[in-house]
Amino acid sequence: MTYPVTRRAACGLGLAALATPAGFARGTASPAEQWGMFEVSLKGPASGNPFVDVHLSATFQQGTEGVEADGFYDGDGVYRIRFMPGLRGEWRYRTKSNVAELDGKTGVFVAGAPAAGNHGPVAVANTFHFAYADGTPYKEIGTTCYAWIQQPDARCDLTVKTLAASPFNKIRMAIFPNESLPTIPLFPFAGTAPHGWDFTRFNPAFFRRLEKRIGQLRDLGIQADIILFHPYDKGRWGFDSMAADVDDRYVRYVVARLAAYRNVWWSMANEYDLMKAKTEKDFDRFFQITQASDPYAHLRSVHHSRKIYNNNHPWVTHASIQNGSAVEDDARAELYREVWRKPVVYDEVKYEGNIDKRWGQLSGEEMVHRFWEGTIAGTYVGHSETIGASVEDTWMGIGGVLRGTSPKRLGFLRQVMESGPANGIDPIDKWQDHHLGGEAGSYYLRYFGSDAPTQWPFMLPKVGLAEGQRFTVEILDTWAMTIAPVPGTFTLRKLDDYNFADADGRAVTLPGKPWIALRIRKA
Amino acid sequence: MTYPVTRRAACGLGLAALATPAGFARGTASPAEQWGMFEVSLKGPASGNPFVDVHLSATFQQGTEGVEADGFYDGDGVYRIRFMPGLRGEWRYRTKSNVAELDGKTGVFVAGAPAAGNHGPVAVANTFHFAYADGTPYKEIGTTCYAWIQQPDARCDLTVKTLAASPFNKIRMAIFPNESLPTIPLFPFAGTAPHGWDFTRFNPAFFRRLEKRIGQLRDLGIQADIILFHPYDKGRWGFDSMAADVDDRYVRYVVARLAAYRNVWWSMANEYDLMKAKTEKDFDRFFQITQASDPYAHLRSVHHSRKIYNNNHPWVTHASIQNGSAVEDDARAELYREVWRKPVVYDEVKYEGNIDKRWGQLSGEEMVHRFWEGTIAGTYVGHSETIGASVEDTWMGIGGVLRGTSPKRLGFLRQVMESGPANGIDPIDKWQDHHLGGEAGSYYLRYFGSDAPTQWPFMLPKVGLAEGQRFTVEILDTWAMTIAPVPGTFTLRKLDDYNFADADGRAVTLPGKPWIALRIRKA
Repeated sequence: MTYPVTRRAACGLGLAALATPAGFARGTASPAEQWGMFEVSLKGPASGNPFVDVHLSATFQQGTEGVEADGFYDGDGVYRIRFMPGLRGEWRYRTKSNVAELDGKTGVFVAGAPAAGNHGPVAVANTFHFAYADGTPYKEIGTTCYAWIQQPDARCDLTVKTLAASPFNKIRMAIFPNESLPTIPLFPFAGTAPHGWDFTRFNPAFFRRLEKRIGQLRDLGIQADIILFHPYDKGRWGFDSMAADVDDRYVRYVVARLAAYRNVWWSMANEYDLMKAKTEKDFDRFFQITQASDPYAHLRSVHHSRKIYNNNHPWVTHASIQNGSAVEDDARAELYREVWRKPVVYDEVKYEGNIDKRWGQLSGEEMVHRFWEGTIAGTYVGHSETIGASVEDTWMGIGGVLRGTSPKRLGFLRQVMESGPANGIDPIDKWQDHHLGGEAGSYYLRYFGSDAPTQWPFMLPKVGLAEGQRFTVEILDTWAMTIAPVPGTFTLRKLDDYNFADADGRAVTLPGKPWIALRIRKA
Repeated sequence: MTYPVTRRAACGLGLAALATPAGFARGTASPAEQWGMFEVSLKGPASGNPFVDVHLSATFQQGTEGVEADGFYDGDGVYRIRFMPGLRGEWRYRTKSNVAELDGKTGVFVAGAPAAGNHGPVAVANTFHFAYADGTPYKEIGTTCYAWIQQPDARCDLTVKTLAASPFNKIRMAIFPNESLPTIPLFPFAGTAPHGWDFTRFNPAFFRRLEKRIGQLRDLGIQADIILFHPYDKGRWGFDSMAADVDDRYVRYVVARLAAYRNVWWSMANEYDLMKAKTEKDFDRFFQITQASDPYAHLRSVHHSRKIYNNNHPWVTHASIQNGSAVEDDARAELYREVWRKPVVYDEVKYEGNIDKRWGQLSGEEMVHRFWEGTIAGTYVGHSETIGASVEDTWMGIGGVLRGTSPKRLGFLRQVMESGPANGIDPIDKWQDHHLGGEAGSYYLRYFGSDAPTQWPFMLPKVGLAEGQRFTVEILDTWAMTIAPVPGTFTLRKLDDYNFADADGRAVTLPGKPWIALRIRKA
């Protein structure tokens, strides 16, 4: 085959769920659907060190569309190449390897229509927002459980069950264990804990277990924001201070195994700037490796403590921000958007909780408030929870159950977002402190936060509006989760050089409670 | 001479004021002081087009310290090379030209000690702040008069007189005229207004007049933030849509003429993103040309309307931000600092004024308030004024007199800043909404804004503090410009994991007025 091949799939590619995410017959290929996972598994050498000695990849081709995907060694003489077909129809593949028995293997398969609920991978849309590959808007309501996959199976099952009943459609999760949290004795590298690692060999059993959980998330429609590195090792296992060649091989191995899961996002690190053994250049390199070896261009970010990474770099798809203060106020939250002109995700804004750390003491009301402020600012906010006897027993740490009062209300917000503008909510006339997000001309969310006014004089900034247009107003109680239509419509009349008011000078009567929003839509 | 020569002076260089900034005897060299201006003037060809035909530069050498400075044609067969000696002592120079009579001219001169008030050029210090070359901190209180140098001499004289009595130590000013403002009939290019320009020839008379004013600013200790381009031409003269080679030659000519003024800063543009004939790449190039041709590395920035320039670029020394909303609240204002890890200057935050545009209607109180919020956030804020019968008759437009109530209070703030930490004021424990800036451990400014509390429970975040340390408190009325010491001292006792309070649980009694700040210093 002599088709032109690009490492990265063309724009708009992406792939869908198989009922059984892994465990195909050896030496055979799995069935597939568009944005699902097609897997080629091959028998090859088990001697030497296949993790470093054997190079394997395959080119997948449909017409002029070519994708090259790296394979990986899965132990016991088994090699796999996974592929997420971005297009329906017949695909042909050919393997390439420095080992003769793995080289030049060819095959043909047909990618069928995606199953219900399979919208493909998520990518950036409309500069500041996200959408699935099939065009469906993706309205992020994220959460974080750093070490949930390091827990016993029963706990992991419980976490999955909790997520299934939650509003969350993204979860941030680490591959490496956390020294302050419990972990089962299963690690990404071969060797023995705490320091007897063979950093030239991976532990396929660890990754198969991880993949099972990523597959479950995918089937629930939840994005898995995979945290590749973090500083919470503190010398216990040494995973935060491996040599550069080990880091790089690890990143490539993770990408080779996971990239064909359509719900994967890549987070280079949590609090990258606290990793004393690494420099910013190391993270540049991790981004570059990920970008070069992921054929599907899954979303890429890095999370910080104090020193924000240079999100202007072309390999960063969106900003992953830690800052609770910024989402106390929409006029703070929106500031980063124009710096990077990329989606801004406030992944860490402190946690709903009752622990003795000030980063884990938010009330449910305050957590929900931060989501609303971030939303009307045209950004996205992340939840987690620290309610428990100790940090070791919290959703944020190890998953399990949700005990807080915010998730239900975040579900209400998600409904509002999903029934809102497909193109996303953007701040409107943002420098004037209107506290107004939406789509100018047609859709507005006015959010009052902890203020409890009893009326709001109807007023909209002029962008996209004209006299005589009519608007309906609903009063949303973001805490009680109620929607009350305001009778009648409001008709626009020019108020001054910048704003329209109601032609009859009407105001909206408000309930005098905090956490109220207005939804204002063109009639 | 075979000394190694660098285009850019080594770190710490910079140069000082001559009583007469221009107009030296032809064919001779001027006297000089450290950070003053030494000028070589030479007679050469007046035929052809010296602006494009003649290349002239000189290497200035002291020991191993070498600086290469471009010369320029000043009309009437006169060529000049200006140099700002960064070191005292004997300098030797040799000219280089493609014209024999200008090539290989040599000379020797001695740069003496800087005169009183000459601290050298301003550069970035302590990541987020500024200092003069001699180490003196520079505490910026800036203003803007876009088109003051385009006004008649009497008006320019009045502007200088006003500045001399003002608190301002920086002024933003444009080289090109503004179509909505008056201008005298003197332009940077040869030819005739409005469209009869010879873009291959400059108008030395225009630049000599500009230099006179820059020299006056220098002698007043005022930085001249020179705006190279702007979008306010709107087809009247075409200066916003010149060809790229004309733009580039213009930038080089301006730098060759002005770089030896120690008080010059370079602003690539005002509202660069509104210049329809230019792309971001054009501004990259202007930065690069300026960086490469300015031997003294004067400060470089670019001002925007909505799309913030990528201030992570290495050629940007500090961010020049337009955003009034951001400085209504210190927790907004500080957000940009960690994005770029460079000084953040809010050069445009709306104006104190009474015009019918919402960007020119700030009260004096609100203007001063924005300076204080920006200051405790570890950033710098810029003033201007739109008080007049029309925009055409305002300080912001054409200089003249100041009529607002803010400048006097900005003078009070400047005194507070100049008697504060030499390293600058940084936000303290910034994500907790303490509204506290200073130098952790020794110096704090707590600012209350429009709130009017009657007491403040003494409390400081723990960074840099220990139990038993004693602090004094003063109550600053930022509007009345008074400083009232609070009797006694406050002794630290641990309050919780994050803060210290007073050992006796004392609070500070406040006057119950807005615009109050506390200055808290280690006893």
